[in-house]
Amino acid sequence: MLKIALAQLNYTIGDFEKNVFKIKESIARAKAEHADLIVFSELCISGYPPRDFLEFSDFIDRCNKAAEEIASVCVGITAIVGCPTINPKPEGKNLFNSAYVCTDGKITDVIHKSLLPNYDIFDEYRYFEPNSNFHCISVKGKKIALTICEDLWNVEDDPMYVSSPMDELIREKPELMINIAASPFDYGHAEKRKSILSRNTKQYGIPLLYLNHVGAQTEIVFDGGSMAMNEKGEVTCQMKYFEEDFEVVEIFTAKTPILAGKTMSKIDRIHAALVLGIKDYFHKQNFTKAILGLSGGIDSAIVTCLATEALGKENVLPVLMPSQYSSEESVSDSVALCKNLGIRYEIIPIEKVYAEYILTLSNQFKGLTPGIAEENIQARIRGMLLMAMSNKFGHILLNTSNKSEIAVGYGTLYGDMCGGISVIGDVYKTEVYDLAKNINMEKEIIPDAIITKAPSAELRPGQKDSDSLPEYHLLDPILYQYIEKRKGPQELVGAGNDAALVKRILKLVNTNEYKRYQTPPILRVSPKAFGQGRRLPIVGKYLS
Amino acid sequence: MLKIALAQLNYTIGDFEKNVFKIKESIARAKAEHADLIVFSELCISGYPPRDFLEFSDFIDRCNKAAEEIASVCVGITAIVGCPTINPKPEGKNLFNSAYVCTDGKITDVIHKSLLPNYDIFDEYRYFEPNSNFHCISVKGKKIALTICEDLWNVEDDPMYVSSPMDELIREKPELMINIAASPFDYGHAEKRKSILSRNTKQYGIPLLYLNHVGAQTEIVFDGGSMAMNEKGEVTCQMKYFEEDFEVVEIFTAKTPILAGKTMSKIDRIHAALVLGIKDYFHKQNFTKAILGLSGGIDSAIVTCLATEALGKENVLPVLMPSQYSSEESVSDSVALCKNLGIRYEIIPIEKVYAEYILTLSNQFKGLTPGIAEENIQARIRGMLLMAMSNKFGHILLNTSNKSEIAVGYGTLYGDMCGGISVIGDVYKTEVYDLAKNINMEKEIIPDAIITKAPSAELRPGQKDSDSLPEYHLLDPILYQYIEKRKGPQELVGAGNDAALVKRILKLVNTNEYKRYQTPPILRVSPKAFGQGRRLPIVGKYLS
Repeated sequence: MLKIALAQLNYTIGDFEKNVFKIKESIARAKAEHADLIVFSELCISGYPPRDFLEFSDFIDRCNKAAEEIASVCVGITAIVGCPTINPKPEGKNLFNSAYVCTDGKITDVIHKSLLPNYDIFDEYRYFEPNSNFHCISVKGKKIALTICEDLWNVEDDPMYVSSPMDELIREKPELMINIAASPFDYGHAEKRKSILSRNTKQYGIPLLYLNHVGAQTEIVFDGGSMAMNEKGEVTCQMKYFEEDFEVVEIFTAKTPILAGKTMSKIDRIHAALVLGIKDYFHKQNFTKAILGLSGGIDSAIVTCLATEALGKENVLPVLMPSQYSSEESVSDSVALCKNLGIRYEIIPIEKVYAEYILTLSNQFKGLTPGIAEENIQARIRGMLLMAMSNKFGHILLNTSNKSEIAVGYGTLYGDMCGGISVIGDVYKTEVYDLAKNINMEKEIIPDAIITKAPSAELRPGQKDSDSLPEYHLLDPILYQYIEKRKGPQELVGAGNDAALVKRILKLVNTNEYKRYQTPPILRVSPKAFGQGRRLPIVGKYLS
Repeated sequence: MLKIALAQLNYTIGDFEKNVFKIKESIARAKAEHADLIVFSELCISGYPPRDFLEFSDFIDRCNKAAEEIASVCVGITAIVGCPTINPKPEGKNLFNSAYVCTDGKITDVIHKSLLPNYDIFDEYRYFEPNSNFHCISVKGKKIALTICEDLWNVEDDPMYVSSPMDELIREKPELMINIAASPFDYGHAEKRKSILSRNTKQYGIPLLYLNHVGAQTEIVFDGGSMAMNEKGEVTCQMKYFEEDFEVVEIFTAKTPILAGKTMSKIDRIHAALVLGIKDYFHKQNFTKAILGLSGGIDSAIVTCLATEALGKENVLPVLMPSQYSSEESVSDSVALCKNLGIRYEIIPIEKVYAEYILTLSNQFKGLTPGIAEENIQARIRGMLLMAMSNKFGHILLNTSNKSEIAVGYGTLYGDMCGGISVIGDVYKTEVYDLAKNINMEKEIIPDAIITKAPSAELRPGQKDSDSLPEYHLLDPILYQYIEKRKGPQELVGAGNDAALVKRILKLVNTNEYKRYQTPPILRVSPKAFGQGRRLPIVGKYLS
């Protein structure tokens, strides 16, 4: 019997003091609970993803000093901690993504990651040499196959790598697999992860402990959900989602599957991930207060609700900035929302500044019909007023653009595209409505009028989104197939979509890459978010 | 004797029609000149880097259809063209980065790239499976070791890869190496490239043909400089830098080294790269006209000169936007510059719009001392006026921030940080002065007053950059060591830098990652530019 503690923690990248403190605290707790072994997640010492900090030898030194400090308290217990380590050979990349085994006050073994994810948001081959020497670790005489995250993911039908580390390790006849991970959230990832882990237990016929990160790192959210699984792929211990957690399992006795708990719906998960994303963006940078423009539309209403949940009523300041083109309802609905949430708001009308801009540009614009330039001026005045408030009072500006708008470039750069973090930039407009329903589940927080009105930017009289864009119920499914599923025009038309509509949408997406390049980081909740996970040339002629 | 044509061309990513046209045109010319073989560069069919377009099977299909079309005209000649190809095996990534050998009207052989660069701006392991089967190609009975770019780069002292493809290929006793490349410019790259290629010829004892891209792809500039080298590492044919070029070499006869031509100075190269960068950003998107803010400082003066050189006098519109804090000289010096260049300009004063903003915010800002918020409002008004002009008249806004400012965050997001492309964002302030000298080499184009005045943002009375920042001659060397050389604080202090200064600068760099995230793409001229080549977390505590 082996008593193993699982510490699912929220780390801050490069905050060695805090990360080490948390790790040591958990080791003390595990000792108090008489655990033989405690497991932490992938690269827990540095936080994940450390990105190009890994190119600084100073950073690597600090990681390894931290590891030694952690090892020094591992007396009467073994700990597994993730840490970048130096490749001693001259050939190959300079680093490994490793797991240290710490026992008797020192580092006693080290395992390197073999399969380096380098797709979507992942860049691991940028830094790390893949492992090519395999061995199991030993804890209290038990042989354990220790792997790191992606190492277990090569069991899919179209495997991304030519070989799997477990195929090597299983030859040593280990009794247990342990996998330490930094596996980011998307709304479908928990199921996929469980299925991948279950395939492994069945394929190799031994139980598995899986330890994941929790918490958000700028745009990437880690959802936790660490678990123990028996050799039949049944979950025997399920740790919390979206929260830190600590469990002690007795791995060679308690193999009984637990009853499946209530699983969260897709929209519940997105909701929880966005709240955690906002929270960690603020708290990890010691920010407390958020500001945002509240237009009377559904997007800014949703972001106001999520921010209030994440940061508290006293820390969210919506600003209403009506113009001559704003409907009266835009103001009154927004005020009603703030009252429902119990938060204060400011009203700053923009008409006079707008008039002064037009006057200032009257020489240059003489004789020309008002158009996009004038519409964008209004959006940019709003962005500027919010940034002025942000600069004056130390609020961080929340961006309220949704994924549909960002995809087709229906937004003003330096206007409504401003912000420190984009909250719903990975949520399609049709999903924004689902979020609204979710928020209003128990009582009407978002006034119904905000949900039912036709979407409008209100930058000219009577404007509707549908003047410029296909209706969202037509737009979103095609965007999803193009962005998430990488379906090209022929496949999209072949699937029954209108050819002209497909061409129009794909062209909009591709010619707006320049706007997305300057978009704030977007909290990632889908398998393919704009930002680090989707990298396209700005200057290019494909489908544009 | 083998007669080989080298076609150094400027491709557009995803513009299959244009790329194929160019390639076929060169094949026709090579045939007319009785060449046996014509060589094009890496991924010439798709353009480089195609990034995530590679994830679309439609894109790959089009590449391969284009390759077949090219092959169909290869009658009486063999062509080597770069193209992404499909990995037929289920294991491993779905694609190879390949070179097709086309002869007798069809594709007769294919070689895959083995070493996949995945550092700095490169992401090749994101898409491609490394090759592991090696063979030489044969052209007119001559055995040739064909490799792709990075494949020859593992001869450095700290090799990044565990093995080199040439070590395999040399066993077949080839008589010639051909390397097709997409090797991006930085100011030191031409020398490094020559030294790497020369190492290869000496190590393997056979001559080498090297064929590179030319032209800019958004922020990445390819400088051409293709060449032939004999087995002693001496250059026997040197093709042009920064221009398309076409040469026919007789590889097994003409081994005589050419006399080394006049090499370009570092600043000449930077100058040429920036002009090419502007030109291709505009022309490849069918833009003609540029707009920019001309402040009276050296940065915007330089960008005005470079843009005029790249786009022509009639296509550059500087806008002077004086405020109450602008000196008279800022206007008169700017006007003098425009006269020297023979270009028109606009003057749009910002005082009234500024006053209206202050009035609009008077409730919120009541009783508070003016500060950063008010300074940023001025910078943002300028950004907005430029964007309004851009929207109205179709000019593309050029950003004029330099690398020193961008590094320490001395700039206003959505203000002077606006723009479609950043021209000198990879040029430190001290190098900006070198560019000015270069531009004024023959006659004074930039008025001397612009060069000699103390740098100032002119956002409050008497403001100087040195109020907020270390002097540039102290700042830039530390930035260079930290950014280009990845030296940590201890190394920097160990090298004799003041500890407090180092700490201050590193903190400024690290806490301004959020601003750089929203910066326009920056023309890359150094080995480590901000943007794709430098990826750091926004939320993190390392040295901040």
